[in-house]
Order: sequence, then C-alpha cells, then structure tokens
Amino acid sequence: MTSFPPIREELRGIEPYGAPQLDVPVQLNVNENPYGPSPEAVADVAAAVATAAATLNRYPDREFTDLRRGLAAYLNTSGGSGITPEMVWAANGSNEVMLQLLQAFGGPGRSAVSFAPTYSMYPEYARNTMTEWVTGHRAEDFSLDLDAARRLVEERRPSVVLLPSPNNPTGTALPPEAVTMLCEAAGEGVVVVDEAYGEFRRSGTPSALELLGAHRNLVVTRTMSKAFALAGARLGYLAADPAICDAIRVVRLPYHLSAVTQATASAALRHAPELLGNVAELRAERDRTVSWLREQGFTVADSDANFVLFGRFADRHAVWQGLLEHGVLIRETGPDGWLRVSIGTADEMTAFRDALTIVMKTEQMRDTP
Amino acid sequence: MTSFPPIREELRGIEPYGAPQLDVPVQLNVNENPYGPSPEAVADVAAAVATAAATLNRYPDREFTDLRRGLAAYLNTSGGSGITPEMVWAANGSNEVMLQLLQAFGGPGRSAVSFAPTYSMYPEYARNTMTEWVTGHRAEDFSLDLDAARRLVEERRPSVVLLPSPNNPTGTALPPEAVTMLCEAAGEGVVVVDEAYGEFRRSGTPSALELLGAHRNLVVTRTMSKAFALAGARLGYLAADPAICDAIRVVRLPYHLSAVTQATASAALRHAPELLGNVAELRAERDRTVSWLREQGFTVADSDANFVLFGRFADRHAVWQGLLEHGVLIRETGPDGWLRVSIGTADEMTAFRDALTIVMKTEQMRDTP
Repeated sequence: MTSFPPIREELRGIEPYGAPQLDVPVQLNVNENPYGPSPEAVADVAAAVATAAATLNRYPDREFTDLRRGLAAYLNTSGGSGITPEMVWAANGSNEVMLQLLQAFGGPGRSAVSFAPTYSMYPEYARNTMTEWVTGHRAEDFSLDLDAARRLVEERRPSVVLLPSPNNPTGTALPPEAVTMLCEAAGEGVVVVDEAYGEFRRSGTPSALELLGAHRNLVVTRTMSKAFALAGARLGYLAADPAICDAIRVVRLPYHLSAVTQATASAALRHAPELLGNVAELRAERDRTVSWLREQGFTVADSDANFVLFGRFADRHAVWQGLLEHGVLIRETGPDGWLRVSIGTADEMTAFRDALTIVMKTEQMRDTP
Repeated sequence: MTSFPPIREELRGIEPYGAPQLDVPVQLNVNENPYGPSPEAVADVAAAVATAAATLNRYPDREFTDLRRGLAAYLNTSGGSGITPEMVWAANGSNEVMLQLLQAFGGPGRSAVSFAPTYSMYPEYARNTMTEWVTGHRAEDFSLDLDAARRLVEERRPSVVLLPSPNNPTGTALPPEAVTMLCEAAGEGVVVVDEAYGEFRRSGTPSALELLGAHRNLVVTRTMSKAFALAGARLGYLAADPAICDAIRVVRLPYHLSAVTQATASAALRHAPELLGNVAELRAERDRTVSWLREQGFTVADSDANFVLFGRFADRHAVWQGLLEHGVLIRETGPDGWLRVSIGTADEMTAFRDALTIVMKTEQMRDTP
C-alpha cells in the first residue's frame, strides 16, 4: 500500500466494466429485449411487490423457495426435463451466479478455462476470485476445435470450464457432443454452459439442459435478462446437481435475493408466455439481419443469439461512431475489426440498416480480411 | 480436487451462514424492526416499482444516481453533513458492501483487523476474499482497549479495519476518539465503521459520519434493514471519500442494483420520517429491557442498538430452547454463556419477559461468571 486509496495493485487504473450509458434513440448495444412488459404484466409485478412490501421489515426467505419452484417449472418447458427446485439456484444476475461458482469451485491454486473470443466479464470473475484464467482459442468461424479443447482441459485440469452457448459476442452455439466431451474431460471439475441467450437458439440447436441427467458436473446457467425481457430485475439462475447448489450456499451472502426481487421474478414467470412472446420475432429479425449483412458483403458470424457479430472493418471505432451520429448505438466488442449489433424491433433494425448504409458510403471502412 | 463437487478445501463441511428460519409467534432473533411499513408507504413502493417495471426489459442505471442522491440527503439528516452523492455507494445489503470493500482493499497478502466478540459474518467476508483475518479482543465489558487496538493496527498494518458501532452482538458503541485514533493508526488502510444499527444509538453517542471530513480513509456503512424497517429490500450503503467509491466500482458486478431495488429504496427514503418513526419507541423499549434484565440479576451489556446481549448461562442452548418452546425465538450468538434478544413491540417484549421468567424458574440456568 503506497498510495490512497489502498486498492489492490492488479486493480489499479482499471476502468470499471460496462458499455457506455448514452441516451440515443436506437439502443442496440447491450443485447436487451426491445419489447417491454405488457400493462397486465406490469400490474401483476406491482401487485406482487405490494404484497411483499407489507412485510419488508422482515428478512426475505433465504432459500427463495417459491422462486426456485417457478424457475424449475419454467426450465422443464425450455429444454429441460425432470428439473426439481433443489437443482435450481439463483442470484442477482448471471454475473453473481458466475462469481459464486468461482468462489466455491475456483480460487487461489485453481484455474478456469474458456475459449476466446468470449464474454469479456469472464476474466473479471476469475480476477475477483483469484482464480487463474486460462484461455483456449476458437477456430476462424468461432466454433470450438473439440480435440484442442479437450487437450487443453486434460492438460490444465481446471476446476471450472466456462462454455457460453450461444457464445457472446460471436453468437456461436455448441454442439451437444462438445458439452459431453468436455464434461468427461473435466473429471471432477465443473463445466458451466452459459445459456444466457439459450432461448434464442435456432431450431435444431439443443439446450445443454438435456444433458443434465448424464453429467453430474454439468451446470447450465440462464438469465431472465434477455429472452425474458427482464434485464432491469437482475435475475440469473442455474440448474445442476443439488450438491452444486449446496456448495454455492456456503459462499452466498445470506439473504442475497431480496423479497422484492423474488416477488418480481415470480410474477414475471407467471407471465412467461407473454414475456417470451417476441422471441420468435426476434429470431426471425436476427436471421434477416444476418442475411442482409451478408448481402452487403460483410463477414457475419452464424448466430443463435439475439445479436450478430459482423465485420471486418479497418477502423471499427469510426463505424461505431458514425452509427452513433445517426442515432444508432451498437457495441464495439469482440475481436478487432468486428462490431456487434443487438436485435431490436423491426423499426430499429431498419434504422440500423439505413445508418450503416450511409456510414459505409461516406467512408471507406471495409477491411480486407 | 479429490471428490465431487470440487468445493474449495477450506469450505468443505462448513454450514451456510444464517439463523434458523423458524415459524414462531415472537421473532426476536435477527434484529429486525418489528414495525412494517404503513399502507401509504406500501402503495408508494408498489407505484414506484410499477413505473420501473414498464421498462424492465432494459438494464438499470448502473450508477443508481437517484438513489445515491436520496441516500446522501438522508445521511445529512442522520449525523452527517456535506455528504454528496459522489460520496455514497450502495449494494444488495451491507454484506455486499463489505464484500466489495474487501475485494477492492483486501485480498491475498493483505489483512483485515476487527475486535472480538463481533459480527460473525466478518470472517466470512475475509475468507471469501482470501484476506487474512486478524482478531483483537475487547475488554470484559466489550469496550475497546484503545491502546491495545492501536498497537495491533500499527503492528499488523491491515488494509482494512472493521469497527462496528454499535457492535453486533454486544450493542457497544465506539467513542469518537477511538475512530480518530484508529484512522490515524491505519495510515493508508481504510477504517470501516459499520453503523448498521447507528440510528438506535443513545443520545450523546455521536455518529462516525461527523468525522468523515477529517479522515479520508474513513468509511461509514449503514443499512436500510434495521431502523429503516426494510430488511426485505436488501439495501446497504456507505459514505466515504469519492476515491473509495471509485475503487469499489472496479470490483462491483455491473448492474448489481436492480431497477426494482433502486425504485423500492428511493420510495422508502421518501417515507423516511414514517419508517424511522418507531426508532424512539424501540430505543425506549431497549432501555426498559436492559433495566428489567438487570433487575432480574442478569449481566447485561450496555446497548446502543436494537438488541440486548445478556447472560450468563451455564447452558445457554437450554434457555434458548426453553424460550422457543414458549413461542419466543431469540439468538444463540456471541460469547459462550450469553444470549441476544432483538427489541420487538411492547407486546413481544412482554412475551419475552414472561417466557424468560418461566424458563428461569423451571431450571437452574444461571451461571456464576
């Protein structure tokens, strides 16, 4: 400690994680669902919170029993089967779930493996839990080279393997044989398949939830932030062997899920068909966006998510800035030369296409890969 | 990793933290405020959440600007002055605030100091952040021996000193000279005065908020769970130099405070006079409880909080169990031979006194210290 405040050396000078919060008409930068809840869903959330608020002087149910029951029931309609409340854990956003997983299973002397390019928060979870962060690499098309992935896991023996499917920011889903192979290669290590965007997967792409019965070291995480259109409520969750949930319980902060959060999420689950009602439209819009970008000559990653990674640009920041000047905010993320656009409403995607067309005409932006 | 699941060795076999969640008529075990919010406050919370819910598909304000403004304004009416929103940080309960402080300022190769007996979650925060936990000891009456405390801090050079005032579970407040002396002794280390129960302090006991201007390494934490009667909403916060808040921002999980939490807490702050309206009554009931227990011949710690530590018992578990059988749940915590009772309503305290009288008559429970 040589200066004030005594922040840890490895954190000094680091910018806090987060996309710029800009007030722009078309927000396609943080993979939100563009459709807000209906007045009926809003009223039901408010009524549930009013009921919970009458006893807010009391601590919430530490085991969030009702919410776990609701989440288990939902998962059994969304790729899973036989999932019980004891197999479900939840926290304030997927990122708290991931932090808890690494607090329980990572830490000093242990490592976590993932495959780049991938979600840029992962290394932060590892850093915050003192877990060694080991990065394998994806193929040119962002798929996993399964043999290389298995070799890396067998060589490094990580206690946690982090496998987003579909991957952020590339949109790439994993084939089930990848999950099976890596669950076997990981031995006693846990394999976390991050399905934050799972509900957007294309038909024919299975969920790793189907494999839960076959691998006790498999953890599948989900969130209510994306397809469920509930980013503001911060509710991430997982399904896994009950022994995994019991282990997390040792590191969780007591009463980590407020009574208000539990009430909000449970009410939203009762409106699942409505809140998820726009997923089909967003998937169709996603596929149209991929096709259109390819028609314009861009390189576009196959996407099972509600966003599309496209490129390549000699100066992606100039393109990002040009779009912003036309009122369209997308995300400068992923490998150099690529940009990521979230899928919005049809009108928002029209605004995106129009702005991109103008920006590409006014400047010679395209790179030759 | 030799067995499944691969929980860290130091966590294996540990029971998750938390008081028993029992359904008992008189709950005096987790220092809750017994008075729920009024119908008007509940309605305002529900209305605020309904407004927030209309855009729950969007991520919340990462900087919780409105809430920080409200918390700063409140602190300036509760012992502080000149506190600005930039000096305020909040999280999901004081325990997330403490975890973030240790993530930023503790960690491997660093230590945190506190003085036992004290809050039993503190060592868990240290354990979860790999911070060495160093324990000094309190005097027989649970006060701090200031010279010994200073020597320990000067000798160990902790990056964090944790000073609850009033202390849990003893109820002991710190004199301002203790805070001043330890802020000076800590050098570049931060001194965290945990005022979770600060609003219950007796008249004449100052808040450490008064010292914020004098010590840039001073952090004062508060919570809305106790005096504010909002335990279910999980909102802890701190006031400190803005550089401390900036450092925490590096380790916080993005969007850690949901839009629902922000709306609930901001609405509750607008009802501060009402929600805090029972504090005077609870302080009076606390003082009556201390007097009554002393009249019965118990040893009772002076209390500036909404709970009282009393003893001593040859078999405190038998007394705890006896009270439970009479429908009164208190807490088996603190040094061996002592029990802690939270201050409830006048009727609840009557039930406690009646039950304790019966239990003490039926069994020879009292110890000779």
